[in-house]
Amino acid sequence: MDINLERVLSRLEELYQCGAQDDGTYTRMAYSPGDLKGRETFAGYFRKLGLEPVMDSAGNLKFRLEGENPKLPAIVTGSHLDTVPDGGKYDGVLGCVAGLEICETLLKSGRRLKHPLEVVVFTDEEGFRFGSGLLGSGAMCGEELHISEADEDMNGQTRGEVMKAYGLHVADVPKAKRARDSIHCFLELHVEQGASLYKNGTPVGVVSSIAGVSRYEITVKGEANHAGSTVMADRRDALVAAAGFISAVPRIVEEYGSAYTVATVGTMKVVPNSVNVIPGTCTFNLEIRDQDKEMIELIERKLEEQLGRICKEMGETYTFERFSYHEPAPMAEWVKESIEKSVQELDIPYAVIPSGAFHDSLIMTARFPTGMIFVPSVDGISHSRYEYTEKEDIRQGLRVLLETILKVDDMNVTC
Amino acid sequence: MDINLERVLSRLEELYQCGAQDDGTYTRMAYSPGDLKGRETFAGYFRKLGLEPVMDSAGNLKFRLEGENPKLPAIVTGSHLDTVPDGGKYDGVLGCVAGLEICETLLKSGRRLKHPLEVVVFTDEEGFRFGSGLLGSGAMCGEELHISEADEDMNGQTRGEVMKAYGLHVADVPKAKRARDSIHCFLELHVEQGASLYKNGTPVGVVSSIAGVSRYEITVKGEANHAGSTVMADRRDALVAAAGFISAVPRIVEEYGSAYTVATVGTMKVVPNSVNVIPGTCTFNLEIRDQDKEMIELIERKLEEQLGRICKEMGETYTFERFSYHEPAPMAEWVKESIEKSVQELDIPYAVIPSGAFHDSLIMTARFPTGMIFVPSVDGISHSRYEYTEKEDIRQGLRVLLETILKVDDMNVTC
Repeated sequence: MDINLERVLSRLEELYQCGAQDDGTYTRMAYSPGDLKGRETFAGYFRKLGLEPVMDSAGNLKFRLEGENPKLPAIVTGSHLDTVPDGGKYDGVLGCVAGLEICETLLKSGRRLKHPLEVVVFTDEEGFRFGSGLLGSGAMCGEELHISEADEDMNGQTRGEVMKAYGLHVADVPKAKRARDSIHCFLELHVEQGASLYKNGTPVGVVSSIAGVSRYEITVKGEANHAGSTVMADRRDALVAAAGFISAVPRIVEEYGSAYTVATVGTMKVVPNSVNVIPGTCTFNLEIRDQDKEMIELIERKLEEQLGRICKEMGETYTFERFSYHEPAPMAEWVKESIEKSVQELDIPYAVIPSGAFHDSLIMTARFPTGMIFVPSVDGISHSRYEYTEKEDIRQGLRVLLETILKVDDMNVTC
Repeated sequence: MDINLERVLSRLEELYQCGAQDDGTYTRMAYSPGDLKGRETFAGYFRKLGLEPVMDSAGNLKFRLEGENPKLPAIVTGSHLDTVPDGGKYDGVLGCVAGLEICETLLKSGRRLKHPLEVVVFTDEEGFRFGSGLLGSGAMCGEELHISEADEDMNGQTRGEVMKAYGLHVADVPKAKRARDSIHCFLELHVEQGASLYKNGTPVGVVSSIAGVSRYEITVKGEANHAGSTVMADRRDALVAAAGFISAVPRIVEEYGSAYTVATVGTMKVVPNSVNVIPGTCTFNLEIRDQDKEMIELIERKLEEQLGRICKEMGETYTFERFSYHEPAPMAEWVKESIEKSVQELDIPYAVIPSGAFHDSLIMTARFPTGMIFVPSVDGISHSRYEYTEKEDIRQGLRVLLETILKVDDMNVTC
């Protein structure tokens, strides 16, 4: 019994094409026509196996392969199909296609599990459309979601409006919460989205924990003024102050952080954003990630001190507000060990590593026994059209997932 | 014979209200409904004096008060009514309202000039809509304009489309060119938009020259990547590189520039601009202004060297392209002297100063004898809702303009 690599690769490609945009990028933003097309295509593969999708009230798609014992909780695997703008072929999709491939392999080999096997496609993992992600996994875990019908995306479309594309209502989202004992464990295969496996030539990573993420909106206020007639000494240029801060971020992380601490300014809005006007206001997002909560707090403090110094020097003001936070999240010990034993038995080189990226597993691990398997990203590139994972590594990742599912199927541990 | 300050102030206020936007700002972007309303309101004041507007094929509005000798070239005064986004009450508008006030004062006092007096409202001075300004004055001077029907604004509207709001065609714009001998001289009253008069408590500035302006589009390319899983050492963050450059701009101008050299980064576009993606590309505009062409070139060289060093260090690439250039422009000697004599005769304290800001006079002075009068901007603020000029200074500026018009009317100099 082995997985069919060519089938996996052709499905990754077909799903990628579902996100083709007029501007030449490939993007499946949550609730967009491309995302819908991707979900339809994905459901089509299951229908050919005789498995019909069930959608929960948060928009998560579930495909269930019954086991020998209908009373046992489900082994759940999967990931997400939505992407960032101009995203890649593997982030999220690999975990979904892997779940499908395991079902197909089991069915075609006639091997039946004791536990039911469920493949899940989580809704709106990336979250850039409305500014907060992990919606589907959050709802499944009964997290407080802070969403409303009136939330607006970058084009002024409301959450209520776009969720209609899935046939959903915002008010019903919390109904997707699942009982703790309905899931035996959750397993997610994902690309690393970092370079540590790739650099060391290691085909598989067993994830120890997922970094905590703290996000901030920062606004610097100076004074908009004419760019020609305001001499340099009279300026309070919000962009110059913001730039001084942004260029100091890597230095501060290097000085105070650990090897895995990262801090990023990913967005920038300048007002009025005119070639001949000194910027009066800059608003931008910062995020800090680390395995250690106290490290996140230290970096936050050092960065805010830096911004405070710059603004004081330049006569400007600022706000520095945390708008979202997820604690660092360790994986379940017994699930992690099952993955590790599976890799060892398959005789594949591996490393136990933390995940810097945000995943549905970050949420799932707080409520359900959860484990993650990483495969390398070439050059560590992700969230980009240049995202790539070697075919051989994809094969190994799927083999580990299959082996782990067989292993946990023989276990009676419940948390 | 004296100007009526209250009438001037109430018209400045009425025209400001024409730009009221739903978001609470006051903006009269060229060709917008607010701009059209402003032009209609302004024409209405002239109609009450029995003067009908004539629009040339570039959209400049002209109001003509005939003189005793119809063969003499016109004394032209005026400025522009369009504003930057969230602009102020005085920039441009003061010069237009001043021209109107001089006509009204002359008419009501029964004083007739020898020369015709023309008040001009230039089209699209600010230029932020399509990225290049001084359209109306450029057309009047026969400058090459590099405009096309297909030019798109920030909302994807084309120049051809929006010029229809004025009843104009892009192809006809060059027909607005005027003969050199049709204009005796051009005079523009304007707020300084800098702090030099205000700081010294000087009510009037006689402009010696207008700074040259060189504008650049700069693009920095790094690598978009996942903000959580890409460790700091593996990053090529385009925004960190751009920020290093932007924060160095004031230091480089201080080191190499003169007291009036300015350099500004006024815009910033980050791609993909997502909180969890390392910026792959940053595109921004830089401008450099100085009275001296060689100084502009020196600053350009030093800034590009700085960007080159940063990008080399960080493994990124860049482009640094000049997209517009106006040479430094001295005012006509005899016009400048006429203004200076008028201020002296009125016994008003004054200073001869350069203009850092861009004006229609920058273009006009290359073809027609041109002079400019400045009044102080409180705290040097302009291109902002906080733009303000003291009433008494407005009065003095208008008195100097009237006196200068009477003086040049008695002169037979032609260039």
